[in-house]
Amino acid sequence: MLVEGRHFRRDWSSAEDVGRRAAAANLADIAAMGACCTSVVVAFAGPADLPTAWALEVMAGISRECAEVGAAVVGGDVSSADQVIIAITALGDLQGRTPVTRSGAHPGEVLALAGRVGWAEAGLTVLRQGIAESDALAAVVQAHRVPTPPYAAGPAAALAGATSMIDVSDGLVGDAGHLARMSGVTLTLRRSALTPLAEAVELVEAGRVCGVDPLEWILAGGDDHALLATFPAGVELPPDFHPIGRVDVRGAAGVTIDGQVPSVHAHEHFRP
Amino acid sequence: MLVEGRHFRRDWSSAEDVGRRAAAANLADIAAMGACCTSVVVAFAGPADLPTAWALEVMAGISRECAEVGAAVVGGDVSSADQVIIAITALGDLQGRTPVTRSGAHPGEVLALAGRVGWAEAGLTVLRQGIAESDALAAVVQAHRVPTPPYAAGPAAALAGATSMIDVSDGLVGDAGHLARMSGVTLTLRRSALTPLAEAVELVEAGRVCGVDPLEWILAGGDDHALLATFPAGVELPPDFHPIGRVDVRGAAGVTIDGQVPSVHAHEHFRP
Repeated sequence: MLVEGRHFRRDWSSAEDVGRRAAAANLADIAAMGACCTSVVVAFAGPADLPTAWALEVMAGISRECAEVGAAVVGGDVSSADQVIIAITALGDLQGRTPVTRSGAHPGEVLALAGRVGWAEAGLTVLRQGIAESDALAAVVQAHRVPTPPYAAGPAAALAGATSMIDVSDGLVGDAGHLARMSGVTLTLRRSALTPLAEAVELVEAGRVCGVDPLEWILAGGDDHALLATFPAGVELPPDFHPIGRVDVRGAAGVTIDGQVPSVHAHEHFRP
Repeated sequence: MLVEGRHFRRDWSSAEDVGRRAAAANLADIAAMGACCTSVVVAFAGPADLPTAWALEVMAGISRECAEVGAAVVGGDVSSADQVIIAITALGDLQGRTPVTRSGAHPGEVLALAGRVGWAEAGLTVLRQGIAESDALAAVVQAHRVPTPPYAAGPAAALAGATSMIDVSDGLVGDAGHLARMSGVTLTLRRSALTPLAEAVELVEAGRVCGVDPLEWILAGGDDHALLATFPAGVELPPDFHPIGRVDVRGAAGVTIDGQVPSVHAHEHFRP
């Protein structure tokens, strides 16, 4: 469910971008269980003075993002509300595979990541600070407007034997925490694997102009919809995944960076 | 999708009632295709100062209504928004039957209705006019708060050979119009079948205190989620259905009452 003013602003994103983003968040959830999305239904509400063209462009954006994975909009509902609200339900097909849940991680396994983290949050920070969109910042702002989840990596992870998986929408540490709690394990992130992610030139430049350490975006930034999964040790990881940590002792559910508890917080829905 | 201030008011309905009503509207859509609902997913948004207990009671109401048909809440999403928003997607099982759509009505068939129409609108009118809820008005007000769609009549209609079906949520004339347009036929309502519906003592009393002809509620009132269906001539109607008209000439898509075009309007989402 995307809520105007909370998840997007009409002056920061085009209608098509909002639609693509709303679809992407749902398609990524399907991929994170190892499935392929087949169809979505869309409930759309907006104020009476919303231009019809804007609403139609949202729907076009949803359809275009769905087409990326071969899915289609098959139904929905329309209503009026003070804010634009887009609630999507995605349906998927496991194609015979066992669903990958959040609760199957075991000590000794490898923690691996497919896709980008921190970019969308960097872009949102640029927009929030009112910084002019230079060419050097275009990529992170675009990452906020239209995330590019690694859809195919979800089914690939399932086929490779992933034991747990989640899409990173609340931040790497926050979503790793969801896996840790549901699996009853500790997930240990390797700082040496995360630091290079923060050294992408686009993030370094955004960090410089915003006055933010890019590593904060890597650890706490949501909305890129990367896929975070655990694999048995020795498994050949699917092409999109690279190892960023390991699964440790059962019973102490939580997340550490090289054994230290990180001081970042997951996304909170009701934080102002 | 139910929107606070548009579809319900927190001072007019309990949280559980709002939840039941939100579920009922979706369960009725499944029944109207001849299917049985198996599960629903719920997207819920509300303001930060919404009492947690209120939100939990909504969810309890949704679960209770779902239990009426053997369905369950299996997932969803939560967010913040200025108004309370409840968007439900229902999934159903046709149990091998062919889905009944809106487009299969043929000239010569019988138009039949299962369930009440006009009661919810009467109750809403009582609440809007600020009329004290007397015992005589309790039934219509309750009909607004918690509709009681004839869920089992949907699959029964499919089994009996219904050729088209819709749940009445926009008003009898409005939803008959949807069937007529999708099927390319004229639906002729018999006034002699509708008048008795307006003579229920509860509607007569509500009409008296509100200054409304109850027949207006019968023709234009939505939200009771009755089922309106067409059946081949000579078919024995399922127990909940009674005939209220017939399907006439193909090509002149529309609705008449004994041949005259009625002067009522369907529900409009963006009407103030």
